[in-house]
Amino acid sequence: MELVEKALAGNRYALARLISLIEDNGTEARAALAALYPHTGQAHVVGVTGAPGTGKSTLVNELTKVLRAQGTTVGIVAVDPSSPFSGGALLGDRVRMRDLAGDRGVFIRSMATRGSLGGLARATSDVVKVLDAAGFSVVLVETVGAGQAEVDIARTAHTTVVVEAPGLGDEVQALKAGLLEIADVLVVNKADRPGAAQTARALEMVINRNAVRGGADDNVWRPPILKTIALDGSGVPEVLEVIVAHREYLRASGSWAERERARVETELRNVLQQELLARLLARVGEEQVQAWVERIAARKVDVYTAVRAVLGTR
Amino acid sequence: MELVEKALAGNRYALARLISLIEDNGTEARAALAALYPHTGQAHVVGVTGAPGTGKSTLVNELTKVLRAQGTTVGIVAVDPSSPFSGGALLGDRVRMRDLAGDRGVFIRSMATRGSLGGLARATSDVVKVLDAAGFSVVLVETVGAGQAEVDIARTAHTTVVVEAPGLGDEVQALKAGLLEIADVLVVNKADRPGAAQTARALEMVINRNAVRGGADDNVWRPPILKTIALDGSGVPEVLEVIVAHREYLRASGSWAERERARVETELRNVLQQELLARLLARVGEEQVQAWVERIAARKVDVYTAVRAVLGTR
Repeated sequence: MELVEKALAGNRYALARLISLIEDNGTEARAALAALYPHTGQAHVVGVTGAPGTGKSTLVNELTKVLRAQGTTVGIVAVDPSSPFSGGALLGDRVRMRDLAGDRGVFIRSMATRGSLGGLARATSDVVKVLDAAGFSVVLVETVGAGQAEVDIARTAHTTVVVEAPGLGDEVQALKAGLLEIADVLVVNKADRPGAAQTARALEMVINRNAVRGGADDNVWRPPILKTIALDGSGVPEVLEVIVAHREYLRASGSWAERERARVETELRNVLQQELLARLLARVGEEQVQAWVERIAARKVDVYTAVRAVLGTR
Repeated sequence: MELVEKALAGNRYALARLISLIEDNGTEARAALAALYPHTGQAHVVGVTGAPGTGKSTLVNELTKVLRAQGTTVGIVAVDPSSPFSGGALLGDRVRMRDLAGDRGVFIRSMATRGSLGGLARATSDVVKVLDAAGFSVVLVETVGAGQAEVDIARTAHTTVVVEAPGLGDEVQALKAGLLEIADVLVVNKADRPGAAQTARALEMVINRNAVRGGADDNVWRPPILKTIALDGSGVPEVLEVIVAHREYLRASGSWAERERARVETELRNVLQQELLARLLARVGEEQVQAWVERIAARKVDVYTAVRAVLGTR
């Protein structure tokens, strides 16, 4: 496929077109993904997730600058519609992010579309594959992290960075419980604000509790807690060091392959589901589906009984 | 089914057990849902959604108090794991919410489990059905609203209340773009804080823009913007008035039936997908699935080609 070859050879225009093609998810998209898939598996996929207001976009921006200074190429996938990378947020933020726009070693893609849930997870995963195959060494995936979809997307990364900030209110603090379970690296951003030390201590308590629950295994990764002021870059190189250390840990412990398998299994199930439904709907026909919708809406039958009837009791 | 009969008759213990049964999603759950489904369709389902820190749990609490004072029964489903209703947040908040705990006209259920995405949406929808069938006149569904899953859950409500608060930072403000599309009622909570008027004005600008885009149809609902201080109840009765007015609008315009059909269609597709996958996996067998996962993880085949091979090219 010519478009795939050009994109893999580094043609940015072809890369952008290929990604758009893949987002559309047609027959051509699948052929393209089949062609580029053998070239994947090299990139370190890093999820950066946190509630709105934690400054995670700024952290992604600064991490990218440090990586570029080291000569590492970076792909950025912004799943968050409020991200400056997606054209969300205020103009000032967007201008700040534009530092990276002229750099050929960086490719930024926004997934701000509001499609269906399964659709967003699939498209994100496929766009990561394209950037991986195109040779970007690190792919940063920015997600809001306050919703289950975003947590699921973050879970597919090799390394998940959870960003917190002091003073976002009690509710945000409580969100940590869910996010902490998937965190490999914890960052308290805006560390110059009042309450930063307290936020870090609260995180440490939860980590300690988890560690006790997990037992005293020397081989288990314990999420480090780092403080940053992403706005001026303070602490960002240290975050990168820990991200790299986590990659080494994954490789040495065999967890890298384990995470790959888990990601693949989730993806296989999702694609199977979507394909099965598409084939069924093609067979049953839109008219029949609408007739069932009417019957369920009228409370003549419940959805589970309807599904059994549509599928037959095989 | 005895459990269903008892729950519908108002036995709270049976109701709690029935909901747990339905969350487990087994064969018994489906039988129970089939039995109670004809009793659904009466409740006004109101989604209350907003970013962490907007105070939406407090608003839900206060809305419930006003409804109770009017003699209306209320079911609360908290999808947000950080909600005080879910045992998240700080103790002070949880204590405040406990006002409602002794009231037999209120039933609170937390959906704080971190299951799969489709699972959460399904379970939430089914729990709403149980509360509807059990005769609660209003069912309030509290979601974070920062993630796609939560937005999708909120979309299944008859009326969606989007809660904002001043001073949550640029990123939160930008989130509005996505949330505004599903808002029927807009609330600027914490209206005593600096910036509240500015937040309300910003919302109004977006609403006006949407209204112009939608054309000047007198029959179109235009989301009103209300200010509240949920912590002391200010402005909450007015929010409830607007929620009731929206229900009247839905009934009069025919949109109520339209929303029901859209909800049913989404649900039908989701249940079909899950059932199709379960049947396929039972047929193919876990061993075969794992073999495909290994092949994909080793980059010997891509997921789409694998799915075509598993399903055959029917």
